[in-house]
Amino acid sequence: MPSNAERMDGSDNNCIARPDFERVQRKGVPEVILAEHKSTEEALTIARQFLAVEGRAILSRVSEELKARLCEEFRQEATLEWYPRARAAVLRKHGMVRSDSGGRVGILTAGTSDIPRAEEAALICREMGCTVFTAYDVGVAGLHRLFEPLQNMVEREKVDVLIVVAGMDGALPSVVAGLVPVPVIGLPTSVGYGLGGDGTAALLSMLQTCAPGLVVVNIDNGIGAGAAAGMIANRVAAARKG
Amino acid sequence: MPSNAERMDGSDNNCIARPDFERVQRKGVPEVILAEHKSTEEALTIARQFLAVEGRAILSRVSEELKARLCEEFRQEATLEWYPRARAAVLRKHGMVRSDSGGRVGILTAGTSDIPRAEEAALICREMGCTVFTAYDVGVAGLHRLFEPLQNMVEREKVDVLIVVAGMDGALPSVVAGLVPVPVIGLPTSVGYGLGGDGTAALLSMLQTCAPGLVVVNIDNGIGAGAAAGMIANRVAAARKG
Amino acid sequence: MPSNAERMDGSDNNCIARPDFERVQRKGVPEVILAEHKSTEEALTIARQFLAVEGRAILSRVSEELKARLCEEFRQEATLEWYPRARAAVLRKHGMVRSDSGGRVGILTAGTSDIPRAEEAALICREMGCTVFTAYDVGVAGLHRLFEPLQNMVEREKVDVLIVVAGMDGALPSVVAGLVPVPVIGLPTSVGYGLGGDGTAALLSMLQTCAPGLVVVNIDNGIGAGAAAGMIANRVAAARKG
Amino acid sequence: MPSNAERMDGSDNNCIARPDFERVQRKGVPEVILAEHKSTEEALTIARQFLAVEGRAILSRVSEELKARLCEEFRQEATLEWYPRARAAVLRKHGMVRSDSGGRVGILTAGTSDIPRAEEAALICREMGCTVFTAYDVGVAGLHRLFEPLQNMVEREKVDVLIVVAGMDGALPSVVAGLVPVPVIGLPTSVGYGLGGDGTAALLSMLQTCAPGLVVVNIDNGIGAGAAAGMIANRVAAARKG
Amino acid sequence: MPSNAERMDGSDNNCIARPDFERVQRKGVPEVILAEHKSTEEALTIARQFLAVEGRAILSRVSEELKARLCEEFRQEATLEWYPRARAAVLRKHGMVRSDSGGRVGILTAGTSDIPRAEEAALICREMGCTVFTAYDVGVAGLHRLFEPLQNMVEREKVDVLIVVAGMDGALPSVVAGLVPVPVIGLPTSVGYGLGGDGTAALLSMLQTCAPGLVVVNIDNGIGAGAAAGMIANRVAAARKG
Amino acid sequence: MPSNAERMDGSDNNCIARPDFERVQRKGVPEVILAEHKSTEEALTIARQFLAVEGRAILSRVSEELKARLCEEFRQEATLEWYPRARAAVLRKHGMVRSDSGGRVGILTAGTSDIPRAEEAALICREMGCTVFTAYDVGVAGLHRLFEPLQNMVEREKVDVLIVVAGMDGALPSVVAGLVPVPVIGLPTSVGYGLGGDGTAALLSMLQTCAPGLVVVNIDNGIGAGAAAGMIANRVAAARKG
Amino acid sequence: MPSNAERMDGSDNNCIARPDFERVQRKGVPEVILAEHKSTEEALTIARQFLAVEGRAILSRVSEELKARLCEEFRQEATLEWYPRARAAVLRKHGMVRSDSGGRVGILTAGTSDIPRAEEAALICREMGCTVFTAYDVGVAGLHRLFEPLQNMVEREKVDVLIVVAGMDGALPSVVAGLVPVPVIGLPTSVGYGLGGDGTAALLSMLQTCAPGLVVVNIDNGIGAGAAAGMIANRVAAARKG
Amino acid sequence: MPSNAERMDGSDNNCIARPDFERVQRKGVPEVILAEHKSTEEALTIARQFLAVEGRAILSRVSEELKARLCEEFRQEATLEWYPRARAAVLRKHGMVRSDSGGRVGILTAGTSDIPRAEEAALICREMGCTVFTAYDVGVAGLHRLFEPLQNMVEREKVDVLIVVAGMDGALPSVVAGLVPVPVIGLPTSVGYGLGGDGTAALLSMLQTCAPGLVVVNIDNGIGAGAAAGMIANRVAAARKG
Repeated sequence: MPSNAERMDGSDNNCIARPDFERVQRKGVPEVILAEHKSTEEALTIARQFLAVEGRAILSRVSEELKARLCEEFRQEATLEWYPRARAAVLRKHGMVRSDSGGRVGILTAGTSDIPRAEEAALICREMGCTVFTAYDVGVAGLHRLFEPLQNMVEREKVDVLIVVAGMDGALPSVVAGLVPVPVIGLPTSVGYGLGGDGTAALLSMLQTCAPGLVVVNIDNGIGAGAAAGMIANRVAAARKG
Repeated sequence: MPSNAERMDGSDNNCIARPDFERVQRKGVPEVILAEHKSTEEALTIARQFLAVEGRAILSRVSEELKARLCEEFRQEATLEWYPRARAAVLRKHGMVRSDSGGRVGILTAGTSDIPRAEEAALICREMGCTVFTAYDVGVAGLHRLFEPLQNMVEREKVDVLIVVAGMDGALPSVVAGLVPVPVIGLPTSVGYGLGGDGTAALLSMLQTCAPGLVVVNIDNGIGAGAAAGMIANRVAAARKG
Repeated sequence: MPSNAERMDGSDNNCIARPDFERVQRKGVPEVILAEHKSTEEALTIARQFLAVEGRAILSRVSEELKARLCEEFRQEATLEWYPRARAAVLRKHGMVRSDSGGRVGILTAGTSDIPRAEEAALICREMGCTVFTAYDVGVAGLHRLFEPLQNMVEREKVDVLIVVAGMDGALPSVVAGLVPVPVIGLPTSVGYGLGGDGTAALLSMLQTCAPGLVVVNIDNGIGAGAAAGMIANRVAAARKG
Repeated sequence: MPSNAERMDGSDNNCIARPDFERVQRKGVPEVILAEHKSTEEALTIARQFLAVEGRAILSRVSEELKARLCEEFRQEATLEWYPRARAAVLRKHGMVRSDSGGRVGILTAGTSDIPRAEEAALICREMGCTVFTAYDVGVAGLHRLFEPLQNMVEREKVDVLIVVAGMDGALPSVVAGLVPVPVIGLPTSVGYGLGGDGTAALLSMLQTCAPGLVVVNIDNGIGAGAAAGMIANRVAAARKG
Repeated sequence: MPSNAERMDGSDNNCIARPDFERVQRKGVPEVILAEHKSTEEALTIARQFLAVEGRAILSRVSEELKARLCEEFRQEATLEWYPRARAAVLRKHGMVRSDSGGRVGILTAGTSDIPRAEEAALICREMGCTVFTAYDVGVAGLHRLFEPLQNMVEREKVDVLIVVAGMDGALPSVVAGLVPVPVIGLPTSVGYGLGGDGTAALLSMLQTCAPGLVVVNIDNGIGAGAAAGMIANRVAAARKG
Repeated sequence: MPSNAERMDGSDNNCIARPDFERVQRKGVPEVILAEHKSTEEALTIARQFLAVEGRAILSRVSEELKARLCEEFRQEATLEWYPRARAAVLRKHGMVRSDSGGRVGILTAGTSDIPRAEEAALICREMGCTVFTAYDVGVAGLHRLFEPLQNMVEREKVDVLIVVAGMDGALPSVVAGLVPVPVIGLPTSVGYGLGGDGTAALLSMLQTCAPGLVVVNIDNGIGAGAAAGMIANRVAAARKG
Repeated sequence: MPSNAERMDGSDNNCIARPDFERVQRKGVPEVILAEHKSTEEALTIARQFLAVEGRAILSRVSEELKARLCEEFRQEATLEWYPRARAAVLRKHGMVRSDSGGRVGILTAGTSDIPRAEEAALICREMGCTVFTAYDVGVAGLHRLFEPLQNMVEREKVDVLIVVAGMDGALPSVVAGLVPVPVIGLPTSVGYGLGGDGTAALLSMLQTCAPGLVVVNIDNGIGAGAAAGMIANRVAAARKG
Repeated sequence: MPSNAERMDGSDNNCIARPDFERVQRKGVPEVILAEHKSTEEALTIARQFLAVEGRAILSRVSEELKARLCEEFRQEATLEWYPRARAAVLRKHGMVRSDSGGRVGILTAGTSDIPRAEEAALICREMGCTVFTAYDVGVAGLHRLFEPLQNMVEREKVDVLIVVAGMDGALPSVVAGLVPVPVIGLPTSVGYGLGGDGTAALLSMLQTCAPGLVVVNIDNGIGAGAAAGMIANRVAAARKG
């Protein structure tokens, strides 16, 4: 095929990404490569850039194909940590270790199906140096399952912030925010059926909460919930250190 | 004005309503005149027909003007019971009394602003012969307020069915349906703000409930919730009588 | 692949589900494992827990893969009942039998395509001990098909509650609720085309019903409709027994 | 106020409307002046133009103020026919009479509150020369009210087309279209409450109809339904005349 | 697998469809088997019933698998007419012929991608005995392509009704309805992109038309548009015959 | 009332607006004060600032009260030009004159009710120095009205850009963009009824246009359409001057 | 009028509200009386309860009538602080003073019209003991206005958390969250026009942010944004104190 | 299979497309064959027609299968230029060359995932003779990346118009339109997640822009954005030439 288009035309712009290497300094939050809307080659290219500059690359929504390529390409220079439920990966240069910020984050889910998003949030909190405490499948259809793990997190582990993950009716974050004196981030998930079952019902219910101190992120945005929680927890931790 | 239109044209159909007098026999539910989309004259005409045939007329969403006219027109022949929060009225021929079916209905509201719809539901249940038990402002922002009145209704008063009224996050019906072995009717209200604040968030959250045995009616449809609850309760009561 | 993530990290929370074993006691409704948003392994794990504790496990929205695994894994200890149209399964320990509560439930569908959701509802009613009567494809495009089976259910079989399943225009539940003195649960389905064809038109039409005593559940929520109907029917049956 | 803007600026375009005088010839449908989005002066100006050219002007959604002005301004030259429920007006030059096309149109409404839109449709049909037959408040909550007037229209009066007006659940047009061999135009109205109560539920239900031969117009578009019905009926009538 | 469920349980209702054989008499419109939401076996069963009773079966939205089975199963007794763009099939008993009603229908499409829905409409009109005239790809992006075929249909072929098929902006039906004195049925299609590209933009634009005499059916509902057009055309044709 | 709040609290921030005085230099577009969401005092304060710095203040969506105050307060120093249909005002310091950029803009409306938004657009174009040509009420319900004024604008007046204003079906911009070699800005208006009648149908139809070179602004955003048209026209005019 | 309804019926439940007096202890956030959906009498009753128990009552969305009644009724015992732009009020028992928590909150608005919601948020932060820093009208249409006040807040005043208030395009919170290492709460407002102009566009844009660490509350929920910001800031402040 | 349908029935209309060959003359914009909703054969047929008449055919949204067929079929007579990210193709008769209009267009993207739509726009601009300048991945999450390339385009390359491509929050076009004196076309993309993630959030945010001179096209409509930009740029270029 006489396709000279690729070399002479629209594609003469070889710069497809301008990774924001200073973000981790400027914001205290590492950039995460959302692989979902990118080709495998694009994701690999950007991962390579981050690994070179920062010694770490974090990727979310990783396809089977991309996962295999990550394993293969970076075997020599980095460890690959794989989070199967979240389908997320952390590449870390050999010899590098995760810092410890002192921040403390609690994560609750309403159901089993919400766990992938909870793990996504946990991952980013940990990469920001936080300790994460989790309790899964404690939703409002059986309230008696909630009280003990919640009290444990708040009073014994003294978390600085809570992420509450829920799909379907999205009621758990409101119930939790009504009970404890800790900022709560509601993370709605696309677990549901029928009208509003793409996470809209859960998101709207959280936005309409009658409990004070509940803020939200978009449906299935585990990374965003984790980044916000990490920032809050690390700020409190920094103040604790004085 | 030479308007001969009114007598010779489009308006030659004088029958504007065909009241369903047999409904109370056929369904066990009295027809309620929804005054909202009708002119005052139309509502009065239909009320007069019901009073004549059934000895009772029930009107909801009554304007100030219609209320005044009802007081004035039917003073001789009927008692007017007025429900100020629901803006509903019952005209009852002098000498008639409400029957007692033996049905038992419990009604909870999440907030103070949900009371008008709760009262609308209570009214229709009572007109169907049921005894109604109420507890208001027991929403999830302060769960500790809920447990006692709920236990009271279910275990002591032994209600046959519960109506749970909630706007905003619409979380209360799911919480209640997760706790008690009684059918629950969720009644969402248009109490809220921002996205979903017209009752959509509450309705969607109830439709997405993860608790079994929760059914719903449309936003602000107190009459519908009451009619369904009354039918269920009266059916149980009839079975009790054998 | 040097993936030590799975054993040392985000995944240290091994508790992925807290099955609500008391639900069947507390609510009179068995918990159903919605397999749709869970991995095959997760669904099997939870099924195993229920079988051990309650002697029965009910699964809905079962994939081909999960069905095969259920057959294979539990052959020794339990009978598998398979509902092909609903794609639902009941595992029952050898020697256990379904109870008989005395409740009586009628189920109608508007079309042939609504049958899977009707079967889902029937299954849960039967597992709650009810007798179920069905009539399919009796929608409003040919009203003459409706009257006989409906009269049969209500007057001869004396059902305590009706579930009416309809997609497309969603008109059948309103028509039925206008005709009979029995509580009606509308179950909208995602059968349709064009605007509102995902079940929204059917759901909205049922929510807007002008017939008294119609309550609804979410689109395609056969389990929820069945659970609510079972609770109502069993309550009436218990009262009959005195 | 030194406002010279009005005479020298944006307003130098004095042509605010180009009435389509040939429409009645080209289409067989008279143009109707929708007064709702126009100022009183604009509506009067356009009415004057139609009266001069065609000897008739039809106005819909007429405010109290405009109605008064119409009475006052055209008293000398024209008769004003006023349709109070539709809030529509026909100005007709003295001496002019409505033609008789031979077309026959039937109009049904589900409830009393749908009548204003039915009258709007009836008006335009009559101005197109049709004979109109009406039956109001025959909705599906009490189906027994429907059969006789419907049979009457179709078999005795032999209407060429039916307009079925319904708000709320919008079920009546589907039921009617399933019963009779006449084209049916569904006219949804903004009568309702809660989700879909602005006429959306009724419109969607009609669009999703499972009955053949049902077409629709937009919510509250009585004029459009009448124009389409008139065109169909007049075409049949013309064929009858040969 | 010890699955005794299929023979003893939920599936004891063997009546999955109640075909409306009288529809073609009652309504003048044959029933069309919408294969989309049915299993291949269900569709074949219903087709067999129609073929036996009426000598003809019409199926729409036919899958490759169903098409193959139709060819195979009915080879002996019937002719299969296959409409490749509409993916529709007509089975006709050997020896039967299509009637000729005298009705005349014109069908226009805005683009090439709208043709499948146009063919669906044409098929049903022809099965109702009408003669169909078509002109494709005459949309408003190049108005000069429209005028000649439209004039041809209306003035030379004297069609009784027009179906105008359009996706994307949905503007063509309004333009056509503004030009000709024939009833127009707008048929929106799911051809488009971005917001409203599922046919919503086209449908809304048609519902909002400022041209008189335009009625609509739901997105992609070629069968419905054809049935309505056929009923109108046949009614005019019957009147022509006297 | 002992309200010391106003002086000591939340209101200690006296800076309520930071007018962007450089915008007219930076962008070539003057800032317009959208009075709709501001109090009368706030609007007056900002107008005073613009008049002082730039010698001109432009206000849109002006209430009766604000109009009266503008007349009264600035009588000494400025001329008030008032656009009654757009409810917009231009305050111009005595002695200042509007510049002439050489840009040429054409504005069409589909109906009479679209004129207020057209005038809003015309005003801002003129304040940017453009000459504006208008033709109103030339929509697709009567296409014959369109061709002459359109040809006039494009071929005789040689406009650089067209604004086409339409509510309801929003079809006119697509038709125009299919006919002429000039960039077209579609301006949808909130003129309509029923579903999509708030301008959504018109906007969606324009977004879905099958005609090349059509861009849009939001519903009723006459100011935005005018600013964009003015920028395009002035850029062409500047190039003409060389 | 013989209305004995009010004393003997639906209204026998005199408990219309169960104020959550412990909330301020349990959550660290005072309860705010949302007056919008309550009658004047209901709001006064609840305010009286709070004043008696906590020495302070906070009311938002206060009508003119309620404001007058608050002035009149509590003059003897409390100071009324009135926030005119937010239409909010604080009643404080004579002699009580606001505490100082040490928390530091920054609030930015995109435009002048967003100020009422900013003031609502500021009020609740101050009542929680925080110091509040504000900068208004610094939106993205003129980015040069943003940098200085933002740097000031973050680097000089060292705020612990930022609230960024924006209607229309809702772009400011994303821009700010991309620039500073402080948690950001996006507060969308119902300032806008056309599609999405009720705050939906602003809310969606914030939910879709590509900047890390941005969380949101519902449209116009100034109270919620303030409560969350106050909780975060106070938690940091408490940690600072050790 | 005895399928005589294909030759004798619905398919007798062999004209499936009426390519608008004069468009490039009439509008200055070449027609682009949107392959997405067409069969491979249909697309090839239309491409052949364009190649024959105009010496060039442009196809967008090309499938793998169609791409292979294009390579194969036209090898003899034309060059195929293939744009891999946009999945678009230009067939050009051997010996033909692209014209140079002198127009200058700048294209920016917020992220890497927006590049396919940017390339689609670039392609059409180049086919219209424009020179295109691009800068990718310069979104608001890291504003510092934006200023230099933007200044470069506007001040050094002196582009006549800018296309700004953004998904997710859609904030970049508003920021750019606030900074530069060049008309800006916002092109929203379907890059996002959760509520509004199909491009709706980006589109709404652009429609709500508070920056003057921003116009938009529909989600992912790269062709439309390019065509509009090309028309504007070429108009300016023509004026430059005088």
